[in-house]
Amino acid sequence: MSKVKPTGPIPAGYESLDGELAISSVKTSALVAEHGSPLFVYSKSLLDLRMKSLRSAMPASLHIHYAMKANPYAPVLSHMIGLADGIDIASGGELALALKAGAKAEKISFAGPGKRDDELRAAIEAGVTINIESPSECDRALAIGAEAGLEPRLAIRVNPDFDLKGSGMKMGGGAKPFGMDVELVAPTVHEILKAGAHWRGLHIFAGSQALKAEAIIETQAQTISLAARLSEEIGHRPEHVNLGGGFGIPYFPGDEPVDVEHIGDALRKQLTNLPDILTKTQFALELGRYLVGEAGFYLTRIVDRKESQGEIFLVTDGGLHHQLAASGNFGTVIRRNYPAAIATRFDQPSDEVVSIVGCLCTPLDLLSDRSEMPMAQVGDVVVIFCAGAYGATASPANFLGQGPAKEILVS
Amino acid sequence: MSKVKPTGPIPAGYESLDGELAISSVKTSALVAEHGSPLFVYSKSLLDLRMKSLRSAMPASLHIHYAMKANPYAPVLSHMIGLADGIDIASGGELALALKAGAKAEKISFAGPGKRDDELRAAIEAGVTINIESPSECDRALAIGAEAGLEPRLAIRVNPDFDLKGSGMKMGGGAKPFGMDVELVAPTVHEILKAGAHWRGLHIFAGSQALKAEAIIETQAQTISLAARLSEEIGHRPEHVNLGGGFGIPYFPGDEPVDVEHIGDALRKQLTNLPDILTKTQFALELGRYLVGEAGFYLTRIVDRKESQGEIFLVTDGGLHHQLAASGNFGTVIRRNYPAAIATRFDQPSDEVVSIVGCLCTPLDLLSDRSEMPMAQVGDVVVIFCAGAYGATASPANFLGQGPAKEILVS
Repeated sequence: MSKVKPTGPIPAGYESLDGELAISSVKTSALVAEHGSPLFVYSKSLLDLRMKSLRSAMPASLHIHYAMKANPYAPVLSHMIGLADGIDIASGGELALALKAGAKAEKISFAGPGKRDDELRAAIEAGVTINIESPSECDRALAIGAEAGLEPRLAIRVNPDFDLKGSGMKMGGGAKPFGMDVELVAPTVHEILKAGAHWRGLHIFAGSQALKAEAIIETQAQTISLAARLSEEIGHRPEHVNLGGGFGIPYFPGDEPVDVEHIGDALRKQLTNLPDILTKTQFALELGRYLVGEAGFYLTRIVDRKESQGEIFLVTDGGLHHQLAASGNFGTVIRRNYPAAIATRFDQPSDEVVSIVGCLCTPLDLLSDRSEMPMAQVGDVVVIFCAGAYGATASPANFLGQGPAKEILVS
Repeated sequence: MSKVKPTGPIPAGYESLDGELAISSVKTSALVAEHGSPLFVYSKSLLDLRMKSLRSAMPASLHIHYAMKANPYAPVLSHMIGLADGIDIASGGELALALKAGAKAEKISFAGPGKRDDELRAAIEAGVTINIESPSECDRALAIGAEAGLEPRLAIRVNPDFDLKGSGMKMGGGAKPFGMDVELVAPTVHEILKAGAHWRGLHIFAGSQALKAEAIIETQAQTISLAARLSEEIGHRPEHVNLGGGFGIPYFPGDEPVDVEHIGDALRKQLTNLPDILTKTQFALELGRYLVGEAGFYLTRIVDRKESQGEIFLVTDGGLHHQLAASGNFGTVIRRNYPAAIATRFDQPSDEVVSIVGCLCTPLDLLSDRSEMPMAQVGDVVVIFCAGAYGATASPANFLGQGPAKEILVS
C-alpha cells in the first residue's frame, strides 16, 4: 500500500552485545535503564578515533579547529578542547561556555554575522580572535577596543567569490550576509593596522556538509589562491588562514563518507607549494559536524505500537524536540530518513515496515518514515545515528512542554 | 538582479505613534529600550478582541478551548484560562504549567500519541480528561487508575476517515499515529465502561491551519456525523465532543483571514439539527494559533547593515532560534515571507529591497527574503507579525549559544 523508504547508512564500526547495539561496550537497554529515555549518548572513543584518523590523513602542519556550535555539551566540549588546535565560537554565549570548559582565549575565534556590542566587548576583553564580517563591525570592534584600552585581535571573514560545490549549505559564491566581499578586505585590514589593532589573518568559509572529496579539494585550492591574492593586495603576510570546513557525514541513503585521505594528499601538495606570501601562514580547518556527528546516538523508548489502516506506527517518548533535523524539518526540502534502528534488536533481521514517530501531537514529528525494521514492542529502544552534531541544541526542546533530553559522554 | 519577494499580509488594526508601530499604545522603540531585544510582545487587548469576536460569531452553546501548545508563556496562559472554556494540553509538562497558571483540572484535556506512564498517572491523579489514542494506551490508563484507586476520565481520540481540505497539517483521512481508527472506538469505549472508568466522549481532530470557511464547515459536518455514528455504535450519549480546530491565520502573501461568521452560521444550524444521540452533548472547538497568533509580535534590533554584491542585508540580533517557522525551516516546503516590517519606520514608504537575516552563522537564518522596506539603519527595530503562536517554544532557543528571547504580556 505504501512505499518502503530506506534509512540512511548506519556508520561502520558499531558493536553489538547479546543482539543489542552497544556503545563503548554498554548495551543501549542498560544505558536507558540507568539514565532514562530519551537520551543522547556521545562516545569519547569515537571522538578520539575520528580525530586520530583525520590527523593522520591531513598534513602534519595543518591545525584542526572544533566548531563548537555542532555540539556544545560541556563534557564533549572539554574533550574536544583537548583534541583540537582551536575552538570556533558563534556567539557570546558560546564564548562563555568555551572559557568555562577550559579553552584558552588565544585558541578561540569568533564568527557570526550579527555580533552585538556586548559580545564584541566580551571577546576583546577575553583576548579571542574576532572574525570581522563587515566594515561597520570592524569600526565597532576598534571603538570598543579603544574605549577599553585593549588591542583587539581581528581576522577578516571573506565572502569568497566561489562556493563549495555539492555542499548542503553554500556560504560563498553570491550575495551573502556572511563575511565581506573580496574588494572590501584590503581596505578593512588597512583600517585595522592603522588603528594599531592586531590583524590575525583571514577566514574563508565556502560551504558545509559536502561529501565529494574533489569538490572540497577544488575549494581548498581556490581558498588558498584567494588568500594569497588578498594578502598581496593587503601587502602583509597573514599569520593565520582558516580554510573553512565543509567535510560532511553520510546521513541519507546513497551518501558515501568523505575520502579524507584523498583531500589530505591534495592539501599536502598545496601546502608545500604555497605562494611566497603564505609560506609562514598557519592554516586551519574548521570542522564541527565531521568531528562529532557520528560519535553521537539518540536513544528513545517505544511507548506505543499501533496500527492505523494497515500501517504500523512505533510511538516513542522522544521526537523532533530533540531531533529536528532527523524529523526532516530543518533545512531540508525533501524529507529522507536518517540512519535509524531498533537498538534493542540490533542483530535481528527486518521483518516489517514501520514508521517511527515522536510523542508530539503533530504530523511533523516523524523520526523514520515507513522503513524496514525487526518487529519491535513497547519498551524497545530506537536509536537515531549521527546524533552527535546539531541535535540537542538545534531542536526546540521546550516544544509542547517536553523539555530537553539528558546527555551523557561515555568512555 | 534578484527578484523582489512580497511579505505576508500585516494583520489589520495596528496602531502607529510618531510613525512607529505601537503595541497597546507603546512604541516599539520604547518596548525594546525597556525590555531589551529580541523581545516577544503579546497583547492582552488583542487576545480579548479575538475571543470576543469569535464568541459573537459562534453558537452561544459552543465551548471554545485553548490549545496551550500554541503559546504556553505563563502570563498568556493565565489570561487564556480566564477567557476559554477549557485548556487542551499535550504533555505532562503542559499539565504542570496549566495547573500552576490556575486552570481547573476538570476543564483540562490531554491529547498526544506518546503519553508515558508517569504522564498518564499525573493526569489521572489531577482528574483531567485524557484523550485516549490507542487500545493499548487505554489499557495502561485503566491499569494506572485501578492501581491508584481512581476513576480515570477518558475520551477517545478518533482518527477520522476524512481530512480537513486545504489544511496546513492533515490529521485524518489516512493511516495516522494520532487517535484510533474508527472501528476501534466502540470496543475501546466498552472496555472503559466495563472497567468502571468515566467515558467523557470523543475528540476528533482532522487538521489545522485552514483558511477556507467552506472546508472547515464541511469538516465540522463530517465530524458531527461521525460522532453520531460512533455514539450509536457505542450505545451511549457522549457528554462531550471536541470538534477539533483548524482555523488558520494568514501568514503568506495572498492568504485571507478565515470567515468565522460564515462558519458560525453553519455550525449554529448544525447544532440546532443534531441527531438525537447528540442533543445533550457539549461541543467544543480546540483552537491555539487562531486565538493567540496575531496577538504576538517579535521585535529584533538591527545590529548591522551591509551590502554584498549589490544586495542589502539587515542583520538582526534575533533569528531562527526564536522564529523557526518564520525562517521557513519548520514544516514548510517552499519558503515564503511572514508579515514583517521596520517597526521604527512603520509609516514610511518602502524605498529599497532588503533581506532581513538573523544573527546565526547559517544561511538558514533568514527572516525576510528580498522584500521592499523603508531604508533602515543599525538600531532600527524589525517586527515579525503573527509571532504569538508557535514562536518561542517552537524554536531551538539554545542554538549557537543564543538562549531564549524575553517575553512580555502588555495590556
